[in-house]
Amino acid sequence: MNESEAPMLTPATPEFLQSLTRQLPPGTLRAPEPRHLSEPRGRWAGLAAAVAMPTSVEEVAVVVKACAQARVGIVPWGGGTGLVGGQIMPQGPLPLILSLERMARIRAIYPEENVMIAEAGAILADVQAAAEGVGRLFPLTLASQGSCRIGGNLSSNAGGVNVLRYGNARDLCLGLEAVLPDGSIWRGLKRLRKDNTGYDLKNLLIGAEGSLGVITAASLKLVPVPAQDGAAILAVESPKAALSLLAMAQRRLGGLVSAFELISRVGLDFLTETMPQVRQPFANPPDWMVLIDLGLPEGMSPSDALEALYSEAADAGLVSDGVIAQSAAQRAEFWTLRESLPEGNRLIGAVSSHDISLPLSEIPAFLAKAGPALAAIGTWRINCFGHLGDGNLHYNVFPALGGKKADHEAQRDAIKTLVHDLVDAFGGSVSAEHGIGRLKVNDLERYGDPAKLAAMRAIKAALDPAGIMNPGAVLRG
Amino acid sequence: MNESEAPMLTPATPEFLQSLTRQLPPGTLRAPEPRHLSEPRGRWAGLAAAVAMPTSVEEVAVVVKACAQARVGIVPWGGGTGLVGGQIMPQGPLPLILSLERMARIRAIYPEENVMIAEAGAILADVQAAAEGVGRLFPLTLASQGSCRIGGNLSSNAGGVNVLRYGNARDLCLGLEAVLPDGSIWRGLKRLRKDNTGYDLKNLLIGAEGSLGVITAASLKLVPVPAQDGAAILAVESPKAALSLLAMAQRRLGGLVSAFELISRVGLDFLTETMPQVRQPFANPPDWMVLIDLGLPEGMSPSDALEALYSEAADAGLVSDGVIAQSAAQRAEFWTLRESLPEGNRLIGAVSSHDISLPLSEIPAFLAKAGPALAAIGTWRINCFGHLGDGNLHYNVFPALGGKKADHEAQRDAIKTLVHDLVDAFGGSVSAEHGIGRLKVNDLERYGDPAKLAAMRAIKAALDPAGIMNPGAVLRG
Repeated sequence: MNESEAPMLTPATPEFLQSLTRQLPPGTLRAPEPRHLSEPRGRWAGLAAAVAMPTSVEEVAVVVKACAQARVGIVPWGGGTGLVGGQIMPQGPLPLILSLERMARIRAIYPEENVMIAEAGAILADVQAAAEGVGRLFPLTLASQGSCRIGGNLSSNAGGVNVLRYGNARDLCLGLEAVLPDGSIWRGLKRLRKDNTGYDLKNLLIGAEGSLGVITAASLKLVPVPAQDGAAILAVESPKAALSLLAMAQRRLGGLVSAFELISRVGLDFLTETMPQVRQPFANPPDWMVLIDLGLPEGMSPSDALEALYSEAADAGLVSDGVIAQSAAQRAEFWTLRESLPEGNRLIGAVSSHDISLPLSEIPAFLAKAGPALAAIGTWRINCFGHLGDGNLHYNVFPALGGKKADHEAQRDAIKTLVHDLVDAFGGSVSAEHGIGRLKVNDLERYGDPAKLAAMRAIKAALDPAGIMNPGAVLRG
Repeated sequence: MNESEAPMLTPATPEFLQSLTRQLPPGTLRAPEPRHLSEPRGRWAGLAAAVAMPTSVEEVAVVVKACAQARVGIVPWGGGTGLVGGQIMPQGPLPLILSLERMARIRAIYPEENVMIAEAGAILADVQAAAEGVGRLFPLTLASQGSCRIGGNLSSNAGGVNVLRYGNARDLCLGLEAVLPDGSIWRGLKRLRKDNTGYDLKNLLIGAEGSLGVITAASLKLVPVPAQDGAAILAVESPKAALSLLAMAQRRLGGLVSAFELISRVGLDFLTETMPQVRQPFANPPDWMVLIDLGLPEGMSPSDALEALYSEAADAGLVSDGVIAQSAAQRAEFWTLRESLPEGNRLIGAVSSHDISLPLSEIPAFLAKAGPALAAIGTWRINCFGHLGDGNLHYNVFPALGGKKADHEAQRDAIKTLVHDLVDAFGGSVSAEHGIGRLKVNDLERYGDPAKLAAMRAIKAALDPAGIMNPGAVLRG
């Protein structure tokens, strides 16, 4: 599409809102609350004429159809926890926010099928609890699980700490109900593990961040709860040694490693500075650690498995110290430590954060290059941590001890470009799990494959010719 | 798009072929061989002006670009093993076949990453062997693995016997290189487990059966080889008991059940009739059996695990007899039996075959309805077998003993409609793993969700406005 043909969005006028109000139950259209117009990192303030809070897919369809006819932009809104601004529109013709928060039911659970049907507004922790209630596990696990909603998790293809074993949000979804940009309802809540009937619309909507339609409900995969859990924090020589340990663990334990998280001493230093109440496993923390988590079947002992792994890894010179959880409480303590790292980061204040992924074997070379390259433009503390098992690192750059984030605002773009250019050169991704939103539209244009970008634009124009769905997210409006 | 606007394809004329020949290395354009114009079930004979056999993605791009300009249809061709006619165009303007068979290299293997880059023309068995060569497993396993090619496996999102544990072809792919319908090259061979940068073009091409572009290479996931294997064939009371056994096995063994295959006595009777050399586990076969296959980590004994499962299942009244493999040879024998079932079917000759999937808990109710409904229109032998763990059954209807397939041709459509209507009523899929091809275009129109179908047509028109890619496959041309 030429730019001259680009559709023009119109603002949501009072007349439009009045007309829409008449088509919906009372109380569906409301004034936006502050939470609808802000986002966790405080970078942007959002605009909206109103918030629609439908309670059924049919009401969602009414809203979308009206917006399509009037060419009014729609910003789909889940839990508002996204980190790339996908849920917030800071400029442009006044849009409508479409919040799924009143569609939060668990519609059905089929324990014998390992399937749950949840509405998009269900909070992730509630989905997890509903699975636990029938003796199953919904394995998607992430920091914001107490407030993020499953529709947002799917729209952004959320990751988290159990991707190594159970996959991303995408891999945990069997089917969707969604409203497409013309207001039509796709009733695709299949409970099937195999279904090769046509194009994969499900995976197209997953990860589209609301720009191709609104997910209203999902058929989710559950898994059996492992009979036994185990965890250890092991001190490793280097990220390279951590990768060798990962390969060893995978060889010994097949698909039973649930999480494999890299932790750096810098992260623990930040906790010592900002959250001294968080219990740490080592009196003198090593430079690099790994939190390994196992979920085992009956007939295997977690501590035996972890001790045998430790022993082989020590013989190979990969690990130098370690603590194996002796109880569920100690395992929970390890995870509290891990989950406190982002809050520690927030309290210290990053100059620039990067949610990157790399081919596993390129990680050591990336780290060897990135540190010195950054040192050439300033003095930093780098907290590199995250989901090493997936090649997904949060590579966050902080001021030197005593320095302030605010003093380095001018350097942020240079740092980001340096890190992202390097990631790209190593065949990595500049958004491993957070998505594009509005924050990384430029990055997508810079690093994205041109043929893929052209295909994305063609798909967007085909499914959403008026450009109403989450304008400016993922693709430039 | 209105029908009046539908693009018109033109035949591949001698002039077109001459012009294309000049743009490609000698020997790239060839006369079609019989294998290019036939398909395994012998239903259709194909048409083609020539076969292009490029050796690089750039040559593929030249072919596609020329066809796009001239509006000549392209039929992508892998191993020719598809069962729904996706690889064969029996009518319409004379197309070009694009065979990937000369792009069959394993470009790279990264054992430490569990990743392999394979060209689309690599035979599945060669991909498996290359993985084994570095001590890894490429778990996609299906009957035609000696001749099907990975590009075709991906284009059709192949399934097979290990989906329960490792997923479909889609789940085993990290990235693609492909030529899009305008001849542009998408270089998307990422080796990343997490990459949320834009729409999921990978999964859109996977399962599109060549109608949205040509896959030329793939980044494939490998997995560690389980330290130990085990298998058993257990006699179960009914498919319902088999499902309870599956749930029990999953609870006890988490993700370590590699395959869970339903076998019926009818299938063994067919082998007795047609392939008596295939060794059978029971002197008096029960009505229903399950082949369960385990891949275990170090520290677990397969025979202990299977005996403990048998014991609990026997106490629960789920199993009445069983044979646990005592050696790798005996496990291989079990699999030979399983893999002989399709050949037994072929030799008997089905009136109608159905590759269906159902929500697991609906399978008993489906079977309870389907048998009597079919009996109302004739006397049949039904061989229902397959990937029960995935809810994927091959529900195949044969003439009564002594009857001939040829005598029932007139009844095929009625049988198919009866079975598919019932599958649809139970929330199932009329193509679980074989795809739509040209055989099931009507089924897709009959059973597909209208909003999804409209979205599919919009995507097809956006990415392939001239309609050159595999015309008539998946969507009516």
